[in-house]
Amino acid sequence: MYRQIKRFIIGKPLKNAALKDEKLGILWGLPILSSDAISSVAYAGQEMLLVLIPAVGIAAYGRMSILSWCIIGLLTVLMLSYRQTIDCYPGGGGAFIVAKENLGEIPGIVAGSALAVGYILTVAVSVAAGVEQVTSAFKFLRPYNIIIGVLLVLLLMVGNLRGTRESSKLFGIPTYAFVAGILTLIIYGFFKLQMGYVPRQPDLAAPTQSITMLLMLKAFASGCAALTGVEAVSNAVPNFKEPSPKYAKTVLLLLCLIILLLFSGTSLIANYYHVIPGEEGALLVLLAEEVFGDSFMFYYITASTFLILILGANTAYSGFPMLIAVMANEKYAPKQLSMRGDRLSYTNGIIMLSVVSILLIVGFQANVTSLLGLYAIGVFISFTLSQSGMFMKWVREKSGNWRLKSVINGFGAVMTGVVVVIIAIAKFKEGSWIVMVLMPVMVFVIDRIHKHYVSVKEQLKIEESEYDGIDFAKLNYANRIIVPIESVNKASVRALRYANTICDDVIAFCVAIDEHGAREVKEKYEKLGTDIPLVIKFSPYRKVIDPLLRFIESSEYDREVGDMITVLLSEFVVKKWWHRFLHNNTRAYIERRLLKHKHIVVSVMPLQLKDDMDYLESLKKKKKGM
Amino acid sequence: MYRQIKRFIIGKPLKNAALKDEKLGILWGLPILSSDAISSVAYAGQEMLLVLIPAVGIAAYGRMSILSWCIIGLLTVLMLSYRQTIDCYPGGGGAFIVAKENLGEIPGIVAGSALAVGYILTVAVSVAAGVEQVTSAFKFLRPYNIIIGVLLVLLLMVGNLRGTRESSKLFGIPTYAFVAGILTLIIYGFFKLQMGYVPRQPDLAAPTQSITMLLMLKAFASGCAALTGVEAVSNAVPNFKEPSPKYAKTVLLLLCLIILLLFSGTSLIANYYHVIPGEEGALLVLLAEEVFGDSFMFYYITASTFLILILGANTAYSGFPMLIAVMANEKYAPKQLSMRGDRLSYTNGIIMLSVVSILLIVGFQANVTSLLGLYAIGVFISFTLSQSGMFMKWVREKSGNWRLKSVINGFGAVMTGVVVVIIAIAKFKEGSWIVMVLMPVMVFVIDRIHKHYVSVKEQLKIEESEYDGIDFAKLNYANRIIVPIESVNKASVRALRYANTICDDVIAFCVAIDEHGAREVKEKYEKLGTDIPLVIKFSPYRKVIDPLLRFIESSEYDREVGDMITVLLSEFVVKKWWHRFLHNNTRAYIERRLLKHKHIVVSVMPLQLKDDMDYLESLKKKKKGM
Repeated sequence: MYRQIKRFIIGKPLKNAALKDEKLGILWGLPILSSDAISSVAYAGQEMLLVLIPAVGIAAYGRMSILSWCIIGLLTVLMLSYRQTIDCYPGGGGAFIVAKENLGEIPGIVAGSALAVGYILTVAVSVAAGVEQVTSAFKFLRPYNIIIGVLLVLLLMVGNLRGTRESSKLFGIPTYAFVAGILTLIIYGFFKLQMGYVPRQPDLAAPTQSITMLLMLKAFASGCAALTGVEAVSNAVPNFKEPSPKYAKTVLLLLCLIILLLFSGTSLIANYYHVIPGEEGALLVLLAEEVFGDSFMFYYITASTFLILILGANTAYSGFPMLIAVMANEKYAPKQLSMRGDRLSYTNGIIMLSVVSILLIVGFQANVTSLLGLYAIGVFISFTLSQSGMFMKWVREKSGNWRLKSVINGFGAVMTGVVVVIIAIAKFKEGSWIVMVLMPVMVFVIDRIHKHYVSVKEQLKIEESEYDGIDFAKLNYANRIIVPIESVNKASVRALRYANTICDDVIAFCVAIDEHGAREVKEKYEKLGTDIPLVIKFSPYRKVIDPLLRFIESSEYDREVGDMITVLLSEFVVKKWWHRFLHNNTRAYIERRLLKHKHIVVSVMPLQLKDDMDYLESLKKKKKGM
Repeated sequence: MYRQIKRFIIGKPLKNAALKDEKLGILWGLPILSSDAISSVAYAGQEMLLVLIPAVGIAAYGRMSILSWCIIGLLTVLMLSYRQTIDCYPGGGGAFIVAKENLGEIPGIVAGSALAVGYILTVAVSVAAGVEQVTSAFKFLRPYNIIIGVLLVLLLMVGNLRGTRESSKLFGIPTYAFVAGILTLIIYGFFKLQMGYVPRQPDLAAPTQSITMLLMLKAFASGCAALTGVEAVSNAVPNFKEPSPKYAKTVLLLLCLIILLLFSGTSLIANYYHVIPGEEGALLVLLAEEVFGDSFMFYYITASTFLILILGANTAYSGFPMLIAVMANEKYAPKQLSMRGDRLSYTNGIIMLSVVSILLIVGFQANVTSLLGLYAIGVFISFTLSQSGMFMKWVREKSGNWRLKSVINGFGAVMTGVVVVIIAIAKFKEGSWIVMVLMPVMVFVIDRIHKHYVSVKEQLKIEESEYDGIDFAKLNYANRIIVPIESVNKASVRALRYANTICDDVIAFCVAIDEHGAREVKEKYEKLGTDIPLVIKFSPYRKVIDPLLRFIESSEYDREVGDMITVLLSEFVVKKWWHRFLHNNTRAYIERRLLKHKHIVVSVMPLQLKDDMDYLESLKKKKKGM
C-alpha cells in the first residue's frame, strides 16, 4: 500500500545511467541559473520602500534610488569577484569548497551552513513573495496565503522528489517572460509619462522621522536581498558546455546586466509613479496596475512574477540537496544525505528543505518582510568567506597577475563583510539574531559529526602493515550458540536444529517464572530426545535479557576470553501488518542489549506464520476428516 | 538517562514475591471497594437536575425524587443479583468471565469490551467531576479545568505505575470521610429547616416544556450513573479474608445501604433547598454552601467529595489493567497487556487507560454532562450480560433452589437490559451512539486477535505423535553464509573470519555503483589473501537488498531447496545516542526484508565504536610518537 502511494506520487525508480545532464549554453544557461537572482528584483525594491515610506514619506523614493545604485555597485564587485572563482574552480566552486580549501575546516563549515541557511530562506522568501503577488492581484485569496504557501512548497517537494531536473529547458522560459514583462513595464511606464500622464499623488502621512543613518542601513540591508542567488552560476560551472568557464563568465555578466536593468528600472519608475506597497499589495503588481490598468499585461506581469519566484525557490531545491550531499560526502553531514533516492534525487535533503521552509512560512505567517530579516545575512556570510578564500588562494599561490586578482577578491571580501555587519546590526531585532545564534550551534554540531565519521573511518581502516597479520585459518576462537526458548514448540525445535547444524556447542536457555513453568518445559524438552543441554533460570523481574546476560558471564557457562557467542532468536513473520503488535516486540530490545557486548552475535531465525483464517479453516477440515 | 528518569518517576523494580495482597475485612473492604460506586452520588443527582430544571423549572426537584426511588429499586435488584454471583464465583466473577463461561465467546467479548469502555469512562467522568467540585469552590480555577483534569490523570498514572496498591488502607479513609460529611450535610440541613430557616427561592425561568416521557427517561438515564461501580465487590471476592464470599456479600449489602442513604438523602435535601447546579457549580458544593455557609464544613465537603471522586477514578486503575490482563491471558488481547512491569503493575494497561481518558477529558472539555452521555451504557451492558450468564447457569445446572435463583438473576438481567435500551435511546444524541458504534468494532477486533493467537498456538504445537519424528542429527541441510560488505575494512574482516569459523561455505558479497568502486574493493580484497570468494554486483538502484535477494535466487548461487542461508550483517554500536542517526539505518530494513524468506537467517555482528574524542586524541599521540 505504502509503496503504491509512493510510486504514484514519486514515480517509478530511475536507473543510475539516467544521471546525465544536458549541458547548457548561454541561451538556456542564463535563464535557468539566474531565476533565483533575477526573481529577487520582485521583492528587494519593495522591501526598501517598506522600510523608508513609514518614516520619511514621499522622500523614500529618492532615497531608494540612491541605495539602489549602492547595491548595483556591490553587484558589480560581486560579479568581478565571482568571474575569478569560475576560472579557478571549473568543477564548481561553492562557498563551502572554496572556504574549506583555502581558509581551513571551520571557515568551510561556517560557509556551508551559512549557505544552507540561505537556501532554506530562499525557498521561504520566494514562495511567500510569490503568494504575495497572487494575493495582490486576487485579493479574495489573501486570508489563505499561509496555506497556499505551504501547498506550493509541497508541490515543489513532490516535483523535485520525482527528479524534475533543474536543467529542463522549460524552466528557462518564465525567466525570459519575466524579464520581457518588466522591461515592457518600465518602457511603457516612461512612455506613458512622456505622453503627459500624471500619476495620482499618494495619500501619504507626513513623515514621522527625519532620515537617519540606521534607517538608511536598514533599507540597504533589505535591498541586499536582490543580490542573493548571484553565486548560483559559479557553483554550476560543470553544467555548461565546453569551454565551460567561458560560458559561465558570459552568463554571469549577462545576469548582472539584467539585474542592473530591472532593479534600477523598477526603482526609477516607482519613483515616478509613487506606488505604495504594503496593505495594498506587492510593488510590481501595483506598478503594473498603475501603468497598464486592468489589462492583459497586468495579469501577465502578475503571473510571470509569480512564476519566476517559484522558479527561484526551485533553484534552492537543486542547490540545497547538492550542497549537503557534497558536505555529507566529505563527512560533514549524516551519510544518508549523500544518497540519491529511487528517482536519482537527494530524497532526504529535499524533504529536509521542505519541512524547514514550511515551518518558517507558517511561523512567520508567510510575511515577506518578516522573513527577510533572516534572509540575506546567511548568503552574505558565504559570499564573504568565499571571497576571502579566493583572496588567500592568490596570496598563497602568487601565480601570474595575482596582485590584481587578490585586490579584486579582497575588495569583494571586505565589501560583503561590511554588508554582513550592516545586516547583522540593522536587522538584529528583525531576525538576524536568530541566524547569529543558530550558526555557531550548526558549526558545533557539524564539527562533531565530522569528528565522528573520521574516528569511525580510522577505527575501521586496515593499515598496509596489518594486511599480513590477518589470518583466516579456522577456529581461531571457540564458537558457541545459545538458543533462548520460551517453550517447547515447533519454532524452538527449528532453532535448535539449525544451531546444531552450524555448531557443536549449543545450549537451550529458558527463563521460567516459577517452578511449575520450569517443570512443564523440562518435561516437554525431555520428550524431544536431544542431547542439547537445557538451562532453566528463574527471573524475579519477568525479563529474559538480564538472566541471559548473567548466565553468559557466570562461571556456569565457563566462557573463555575470545569465545564468540551466538544468540539465536526466533521471530514470527506475520501475514498482516497489525499482527506485529500482537507479539512481544522484545526481539529488537533484546538484540540491542546483546549487541552492546563485543563477543555476542545475534542471529534471527524467521518463522513464517500462515494466514489465520486459512489455517483455522484447514484445521477444522482436518479434524473433521479424522 | 532515560532509565534514570524512569527510575525517578516509577521507582525501583520490585520482585515477584512482593505480589502478595493483604486480605480485606469489612472495615477496610467496604471503603476500598466502594469508592467508585459511592462517589457516583456526587454527580448522579446533579445530572438528573441538569436535565429536568431547564425544561420544567421548580417541578424538577419533585420529579428527581421519584426517579431516585426507581434507581434505588434498581440498586436493590442489582444487589440481590450480585450476591448470587459472589457465591458462584469466589475466584472473582467479572462480567467477562461469567458471560464467556455461560453464554459463549462473543457475549464474553462484548461484556469485556463494555466493561473496558466503562472503566475508561469512570476515570474520565470521575476526574472531570472531581475537578468540577474544586472549581465550584474556587471559581478562579475554572478556566484551567481541562489542564487540571489532565494533570490529575497523569498523577493517577504515575501513582499506579509505581504500583500503589488499591488495598492500601489509606485509601479507605476518604470514603468514610465523604460518607460522614454527606450524612452531616443531610442531617444538619434538615435540622436547619426545622429551626425555621427558609431557603431562598431560586430565580427560575418559567418551565418551557411540559414534562414528557422522553425527558423523564433522559433524567433516569443520567441518574443510572449512580449504580456504576456496584460490580466492583463481586469482581474482587478473592481479596477478602476467608470466608471471602460471606465478607463480600456483607460489604455489598452495606455498600447498597450507603448509596441508598446518601442518594435519597441528597435528593430530598436538594428538593428543599432548591439548589441549581450548572454555571454556579456542582450540586454538593452548592448544597454545602447553602447549609453551612462559608465555614469549615463547606471546605470539608468540597475536599472529601473531590478525594472520593479521584479515588473512584483510581479503582478503574486497578480494574481496567486487571480486566485486560485476564483477557490477554485468555488470548483476547495483545500479549503485552498481560505482563507486569518492573513495579508489578500492568504498565501497558495503565498507560492505555490514561491516554484514552485524557483524550476524552480534552475532547469533551472536562464537562461531566457531556461525558455522562457515553458512560452508563457500557456498564449496564456488562451488568445485563453478567446477569444473563448467571440466569443461564442456573437453568443449565438446575442445582438446589435454582428456580428462585434463576428468577432473581433473570429479573436482574431484564431490568438492566431495559436500562440499556433506555440509555441507548434517551442518550443517543448525547453520545451513546458513539459507544454503540464502537462496541461492534471492538468485538470484531478482539475476535480477530483471538483467532490470530489460536492460529499461532496451533501452528507451533508439537502433537504427541510428532515427537518421535524430530531428528537432531547433524547436517540435515546445507548451511551457507553470505557476508555483505560495503568495503574492505576491519568490520568486514571480522565478519568474514567469524563466518569462516562457523561454516565451510562462505561468500563475500559487495554491491558497487560503478566499475571504479568495484575495482577498488577487488584490489583491497585480494590483499587479504583469503580463499573466501567475493561476488560483486552492480546496482542500478543504489540499494543492497534487491541485488542480494536476486543473487540468492540466481543459478549463480546454485542454491538447493532446503539450504539454510545465513546473511551476516555488521552493525556499529555507537557511544552516543545521536550517533545512531549518522549511520545508514538500513540494517533494520534489510533484516526485515530478508526475514520474509523462509530459509534465510539473519545474523548481526556488533562492532563497538570507541569514543570519538578519546580515539582521535590517542591517534594524534600515536602519530606524534612515530
